Amino acid sequence: MKDNAKIALKNEKILDKIKQTKDIKTLTYPQKEQLAKEMREEIIDTVSKTGGHLASNLGVVELTIALHSVFETPKDKIIWDVGHQTYGHKILTGRREQMTTLRQLDGIAGFPKAKESEYDNFDTGHSSTSISAALGMARARDLQQKDNHVIAVIGDGALTGGMALEALDDAGNSKTRLIVVLNDNEMSISKNVGGISRFLTKIRTKRFYKKSNNFIRKILEYIPKFGPFIIKLARRIKYSIKQLLLPNMFFEDLGFKYLGPVDGHDIERVEWILNLAKKEKEPVVVHIITKKGKGYEPAEKNPDQFHATASFEKDTGKPIKSKIKDYSAVFGDTLVELAKKDKKIVAITAAMADGTGLSKFKEIFPERFFDVGIAEQHALTMAAGMAKEGYIPVVPIYSSFYQRAYDQVIHDICLQNLPVVMCVDRAGIVGQDGETHQGIFDLSFFSIIPNLTIMAPKDFKELEEMLTFAVKLRKTSRYSLSKRWRARNI
Amino acid sequence: MKDNAKIALKNEKILDKIKQTKDIKTLTYPQKEQLAKEMREEIIDTVSKTGGHLASNLGVVELTIALHSVFETPKDKIIWDVGHQTYGHKILTGRREQMTTLRQLDGIAGFPKAKESEYDNFDTGHSSTSISAALGMARARDLQQKDNHVIAVIGDGALTGGMALEALDDAGNSKTRLIVVLNDNEMSISKNVGGISRFLTKIRTKRFYKKSNNFIRKILEYIPKFGPFIIKLARRIKYSIKQLLLPNMFFEDLGFKYLGPVDGHDIERVEWILNLAKKEKEPVVVHIITKKGKGYEPAEKNPDQFHATASFEKDTGKPIKSKIKDYSAVFGDTLVELAKKDKKIVAITAAMADGTGLSKFKEIFPERFFDVGIAEQHALTMAAGMAKEGYIPVVPIYSSFYQRAYDQVIHDICLQNLPVVMCVDRAGIVGQDGETHQGIFDLSFFSIIPNLTIMAPKDFKELEEMLTFAVKLRKTSRYSLSKRWRARNI
Repeated sequence: MKDNAKIALKNEKILDKIKQTKDIKTLTYPQKEQLAKEMREEIIDTVSKTGGHLASNLGVVELTIALHSVFETPKDKIIWDVGHQTYGHKILTGRREQMTTLRQLDGIAGFPKAKESEYDNFDTGHSSTSISAALGMARARDLQQKDNHVIAVIGDGALTGGMALEALDDAGNSKTRLIVVLNDNEMSISKNVGGISRFLTKIRTKRFYKKSNNFIRKILEYIPKFGPFIIKLARRIKYSIKQLLLPNMFFEDLGFKYLGPVDGHDIERVEWILNLAKKEKEPVVVHIITKKGKGYEPAEKNPDQFHATASFEKDTGKPIKSKIKDYSAVFGDTLVELAKKDKKIVAITAAMADGTGLSKFKEIFPERFFDVGIAEQHALTMAAGMAKEGYIPVVPIYSSFYQRAYDQVIHDICLQNLPVVMCVDRAGIVGQDGETHQGIFDLSFFSIIPNLTIMAPKDFKELEEMLTFAVKLRKTSRYSLSKRWRARNI
Repeated sequence: MKDNAKIALKNEKILDKIKQTKDIKTLTYPQKEQLAKEMREEIIDTVSKTGGHLASNLGVVELTIALHSVFETPKDKIIWDVGHQTYGHKILTGRREQMTTLRQLDGIAGFPKAKESEYDNFDTGHSSTSISAALGMARARDLQQKDNHVIAVIGDGALTGGMALEALDDAGNSKTRLIVVLNDNEMSISKNVGGISRFLTKIRTKRFYKKSNNFIRKILEYIPKFGPFIIKLARRIKYSIKQLLLPNMFFEDLGFKYLGPVDGHDIERVEWILNLAKKEKEPVVVHIITKKGKGYEPAEKNPDQFHATASFEKDTGKPIKSKIKDYSAVFGDTLVELAKKDKKIVAITAAMADGTGLSKFKEIFPERFFDVGIAEQHALTMAAGMAKEGYIPVVPIYSSFYQRAYDQVIHDICLQNLPVVMCVDRAGIVGQDGETHQGIFDLSFFSIIPNLTIMAPKDFKELEEMLTFAVKLRKTSRYSLSKRWRARNI
């Protein structure tokens, strides 16, 4: 009896009925809310066992359902920026049973992989690539005179990356039909930084915005009932009202139409705005507000800690294994000690203070700590500027992200022989994150650059000594430090 | 007598009286205009003999005079983006006599070099680095509690580069005191592209803008006469008026104060607005409008041709040596032939259609040609998106600029094994542009990437064959083509 009851309970799961994405379209909104709940449970369950990205996945459950409801996937193409938020998408696109193998040898990947599913339209892993890829696909569609939609889903954190802005600039002017869903959770891995983030906060907090937005909504909802002239007029009025009252011109200055913001956890609302976006003939930004870690209290409280996590106890959120001291921590502690003695030492991070061991430095020397956003290029050249003025910038960046700043290392730092200490975190074989995050190229691509000294510590003690050596010998030459270790909790 | 008259004439030159930049400050505006004329003549004279960048240098003569008039150089630091527009700056900072050695062995460089002069505060060469470097210097200044100014001079073309936007994003939020002079000439090397450019055009063309701008100017001019409360009020009014009427919110959304636009060839006006900027305690964008090639008719008419030029006849602007067929031309012609037969071939450039031999392709296949701006990262990932949808994107980029897209080659193209044909222009020893433009690293940094085939044609014939091979064999693998040749007319 007990077993039968269990089976009955299991059979009641809406998830069990989703055999293909078409099945999602037939659900009512209460059923979709139930579906979101079930997906959330399965994601928490999986990640508590396998480890992986949690908070970002919990934040986009409703968005994922809405996207597959509104669009004809895989004909319509969704490009997930970074791709660490695709667990829900994987559950809905035929990979539910394989979620237990997530990030394991021969299991499914923690990021989208075209080889896994036709629903994964473009492989991602590094930040800020989605709009470029989507624009390429949209242009290919137009050349073939096809009519499918292309949707880039990008977080506000990833918008601090220059290539996303390059892509917005190009797409905005080209007027190619393209949907950019801005998943605004006020976070990259840590709290998001930068002017765009500040401006998005302004949109979120202006009360009059919300009011007039409701008013605009109402106008928009009635637009289909009127003739083209009235539509044009209404649009012009809407545009004028927006231009007069609202601080949302950033995207429109770039040539995008802007829709939003809406609550990203209200499926009905998200579907409504995606349907509006679907009708547009030009590039459009859909701004939705979500909460990282939504629906799991420990993750809502500490979204940065649960951005990516090792396995943990589901009830409490506590890690199963206690964290052992790693190279990042040794690096961070050593740097704090060095910085106490030398006021010229500053630390720069590209949105990875925790991951690279800089949290303590940030706390003790807030005025000498700079988080520039997910912007490795700018981080390195900014470091060059500080070095030119007599400072010793120490810049820890993951190996595979140093690939993003290769020209800056050559052109802005090494050609001028400036004393920037570049620390390569997550060098070597990195493991569970897969091929996009391997740190296997750094020794090769760094070793050909003049004026660059490479050191590779084999243990904690050597790391301390090499870092000390690197920051001290600034007057005679430039030094770089390569910290090679395996990843933990990326 | 005749000789004496010549000497007298020569002695009348204002340039002869400029021994240090302080001397510029003592000149009247008519004298400064005369100075501009003399500088222009010397620049045209020099470049007609040595070759080099012409149009960009002619465009900033007045700006250069105004900058050295308003600021205390070298204590105040000017960072010239790209740095190809610094001939006038070099003439005014003690290197006038050496201009005949420009871009020659043991002569002065065509770009800023700290080793040449204390007035060259940061070495540049590649686009879009200036705001990052300037922000680094400004932060270093603040940490030391110094009070000097840091000024980045950047063209609207360079603003399409992602790292410039990363830097704006960081600077805008950090509120570090910093001046960004936006030298808006509607050009990168060719006509500028992208949403930001489109938006700047809007500012330039809106008539009501100019009117209200005059009004705002008047208010601003009187501000110092009132008390702090009135200033605050006036600022708020000014901001409200701007927000209501003007399409210039882009920079303000990012956290910058915006001043402008003014005519960049009106020295008095430029000095006036720079003096306003000097008083600001936060990051400010000063928008000036200039004309590339200003004051030399052939260059005004063909600014792209005179962006960089070989030696030419001063009176006519005609090149002294007729251009011989080079690898870029062979590449362009071959690609056009291939594209006639294969509709899937598309060409992508990062603002270098002419330099990389794509002009003909652009003319014959406008709908299959994409200029994405100075945005190599986006260019390559956009190419990956098109390749994913069955197209064969051919992407010629200069070797030293491929360094800008290293991660995109690895992460977006090669990991997915996509058929993008990457053509490396200006590979090998490049000559006159100096160390920033050498194409000496490409074979090394490309050769370590999996799924990448490198070919290096030794002559035109091989180039044709290799390009044909590269675009045809798309189905079985990914191919890259490395065109190695010496630079001509960069």
